[in-house]
Amino acid sequence: MKPQVLSKMGRRTVEPPISWLMHAALSRPKLISLAAGFTDNASLPVAEARAALNQVLRSPKTGQPALQYGSTAGDTTLRQLTAEHLRKLDAKAIGVMEYWSDGIMDPAPHHSTTPSLHFETRLLITSGSQQLLYITTEALCDEGDIVLVEDPTYFVYLSILQSRGLRARAVRLERDGLDLAHLESVLQSLKRSGELRRVKMIYLVSYFQNPTGVTTCFEKKAGALKLLKKFERAAGHPIYLLEDAAYRELCFQKDNKAQSSVSTPSPRPSGERAGARGFELENHWTPHPAPLLVWRGEGDIKSALAALGAADRVIYAGTFTKPFATGARVGYGVLPEPVFSAVKHIKGNHDFGTANLLQQLFVRALASGIYERQVARLQKRYARKARVMKLAIQKHFPPAVEWWEPEGGLYFWARLPRNVPTGVKSKVFQTALKNDVLYVPGEICYADDAARRKPNHEMRISFGNASEADIREGIKRLGAVLRIVMT
Amino acid sequence: MKPQVLSKMGRRTVEPPISWLMHAALSRPKLISLAAGFTDNASLPVAEARAALNQVLRSPKTGQPALQYGSTAGDTTLRQLTAEHLRKLDAKAIGVMEYWSDGIMDPAPHHSTTPSLHFETRLLITSGSQQLLYITTEALCDEGDIVLVEDPTYFVYLSILQSRGLRARAVRLERDGLDLAHLESVLQSLKRSGELRRVKMIYLVSYFQNPTGVTTCFEKKAGALKLLKKFERAAGHPIYLLEDAAYRELCFQKDNKAQSSVSTPSPRPSGERAGARGFELENHWTPHPAPLLVWRGEGDIKSALAALGAADRVIYAGTFTKPFATGARVGYGVLPEPVFSAVKHIKGNHDFGTANLLQQLFVRALASGIYERQVARLQKRYARKARVMKLAIQKHFPPAVEWWEPEGGLYFWARLPRNVPTGVKSKVFQTALKNDVLYVPGEICYADDAARRKPNHEMRISFGNASEADIREGIKRLGAVLRIVMT
Repeated sequence: MKPQVLSKMGRRTVEPPISWLMHAALSRPKLISLAAGFTDNASLPVAEARAALNQVLRSPKTGQPALQYGSTAGDTTLRQLTAEHLRKLDAKAIGVMEYWSDGIMDPAPHHSTTPSLHFETRLLITSGSQQLLYITTEALCDEGDIVLVEDPTYFVYLSILQSRGLRARAVRLERDGLDLAHLESVLQSLKRSGELRRVKMIYLVSYFQNPTGVTTCFEKKAGALKLLKKFERAAGHPIYLLEDAAYRELCFQKDNKAQSSVSTPSPRPSGERAGARGFELENHWTPHPAPLLVWRGEGDIKSALAALGAADRVIYAGTFTKPFATGARVGYGVLPEPVFSAVKHIKGNHDFGTANLLQQLFVRALASGIYERQVARLQKRYARKARVMKLAIQKHFPPAVEWWEPEGGLYFWARLPRNVPTGVKSKVFQTALKNDVLYVPGEICYADDAARRKPNHEMRISFGNASEADIREGIKRLGAVLRIVMT
Repeated sequence: MKPQVLSKMGRRTVEPPISWLMHAALSRPKLISLAAGFTDNASLPVAEARAALNQVLRSPKTGQPALQYGSTAGDTTLRQLTAEHLRKLDAKAIGVMEYWSDGIMDPAPHHSTTPSLHFETRLLITSGSQQLLYITTEALCDEGDIVLVEDPTYFVYLSILQSRGLRARAVRLERDGLDLAHLESVLQSLKRSGELRRVKMIYLVSYFQNPTGVTTCFEKKAGALKLLKKFERAAGHPIYLLEDAAYRELCFQKDNKAQSSVSTPSPRPSGERAGARGFELENHWTPHPAPLLVWRGEGDIKSALAALGAADRVIYAGTFTKPFATGARVGYGVLPEPVFSAVKHIKGNHDFGTANLLQQLFVRALASGIYERQVARLQKRYARKARVMKLAIQKHFPPAVEWWEPEGGLYFWARLPRNVPTGVKSKVFQTALKNDVLYVPGEICYADDAARRKPNHEMRISFGNASEADIREGIKRLGAVLRIVMT
């Protein structure tokens, strides 16, 4: 009997492309994977997690609540600590500004708080921020609805859209985030075609984006919010901005000096390499005008939550997983009503609450300073690994390859000449595999969007999981492959 | 602006009834809750979990994998240990039999294995068994599809169906599980109405059912499977049996003597109380013939996985959470293809795998014997608490209340006379609340089914979380309320 029994979703949901890559990796023991988004193994806080868990489980009084069911929204103390943590991140970050209803942008870099930062009551703890992305999409989108995404974007989010029968419309990405002019033209075109009512939100990976490393400046988040508002009347309902800040805390601290000036924007154009021009993200949108660049530097940028008008339109997805331990899956979301309640109730059906033991681990880690110290360690460690990768790329990649040095996160993004594809069936990918080095083909990070041809000549290269020696060796192998294929 | 932006699911998903009960509890500090399905707090294995986690995190070598991402299907060692664990449960359980294609039942109580027990490769680790129920339903059911459920059944599963726009059809429950004759007549009626193609599965809470405490005998599971097969041709696709075995390991061990004979069925009709007749689950299905009783006793009963023909039709949902620590959410599922792959891929979108740290905790707990010893402790403890509740009910409940003593799980089920409703607006519930005692109204455990009037005069009473003193006092209060309201 044919498997017609599966639901439409069951039939649509296919093996993720990354699984195929992982299988490929397993069958080649000497392979160096620069593909996985895994975090650095050697710096995982084993002793720190042990200490925190010993504290949690030191007595029946403290241990029993950790081993018992909790509430669906999450532990009250953790929700408070998380809100506090978020407020701290935004307080020390740059880019505070508010925009007013008359449309005048009013930069106010040292404004201390905004009303939208009081959000304990609409903060939800989830099993990693991934679960928040999933359930938020469930709560907002019916089959056939449209989500605007960056071009390129996080490919697992594209899998969620595909699985749920949703459509993505891609918005051009610039070095400092969304191309707002393009966003407006996409919204205009959806309005003309009568599809604006199907648009429920825009999804932004706003810090050290997966896959490009781009950080969206605060002005652009505020600007995107304003644009969305402008189109809400025609849509007939709110259009949300879902900010995925998964990599936010993985900004680089390069040395002690850099540490002390961490909240200062770095004005230098990063990513220039010896012998190649500094480059902008390529304009795949040929009829579109040249990018409007408002370069503000990266690092600590305020979240969209800090923008005026964000309180009822911004959904913020954060995580403790990536900056601490990916095996202890605790993320969180800040959501406006009615999305908060809908997401909470749907989560009740998923699992009635994230594992309390993991939540208590983070209560301890946050309250004791373990978390903060680990993040500081990671920031230095990843900065170092990124530098190792940068030097290797400078040494081994052919000059015709454009690439961009990130200031945080886990990834380099590289672009080959247009006539050199990088997909899994390409000569580049197959030769790389034969030479025991793996990357993520750029094409899987692009939504299906009829408005442009899907780019297929880029690659995401991760320094997260590989050792420094493997980064050097992997880039050397990849460089050799590129030199062979490109000549 | 009205919240029209929510998806159909977002609008359908309402606050679960149990949340309201919890809120009621919070506002009355002296309230004794016999409502929550929480497990016993005092017996949570704090020291054991601490020891296991210290083992996991004793060194970077063992600790790093636990703090790193894993695979979506779950840790390989945990999957092997879980398959082993399930095989052991089924090997020592009673009720082995196979049914053959000619329909002759062939009881073979000491048959050692069946091919369907080799299932490592189709076993998936989930965030509690709840997540498996959710994703399986996603993978199989489109809006408007039908799931057959026991009458009554686990109310959170009814919430999943309601949230996803699915329909439930209820099947009468007898003391030893499903009424197979009623199941057949429901399937016949669906066939006649042309709706059989919408039927994707039957959902059974097969051990010490939530809410009634009923355990389904093995013959009935095998019989249900056979019936489903019979209707598959007319349905045009497989019809699955989803066995929710969440309470399986919470069977009672009453004393040392009982321990040694745990695999022997208890033939005595349980639940008879002094002064009241032993009772069958009420027949809410008036046009239906009298129940066909095949009483086989409770305790260790083989899972539906052990039935011939189960390999491609039974989905088994199990959990380590309830019998060990509800704060460490690890469940598992055994699923046939194509459901296994669909569920795994959808889980990839939910969270790309259950927290590895919790999985490693259970690897340790299972391998070291910690898990098994904790289960044995709990079995004795819950037996004792159930006995305390039984004695209190015997002492305090009016004779007109029928109730049934379970042999495992967390719940007593009680039935008032038909003219005495128990819902949240009823005099019974409101008087109980005023007297600081809480129960779960039976009506929330019934699906909406036009084929019968929804019963509203029952209650689920839990001995899981309350202390022995609170059980005594709570039942005393509840008995007093019943005496007042019923006279």
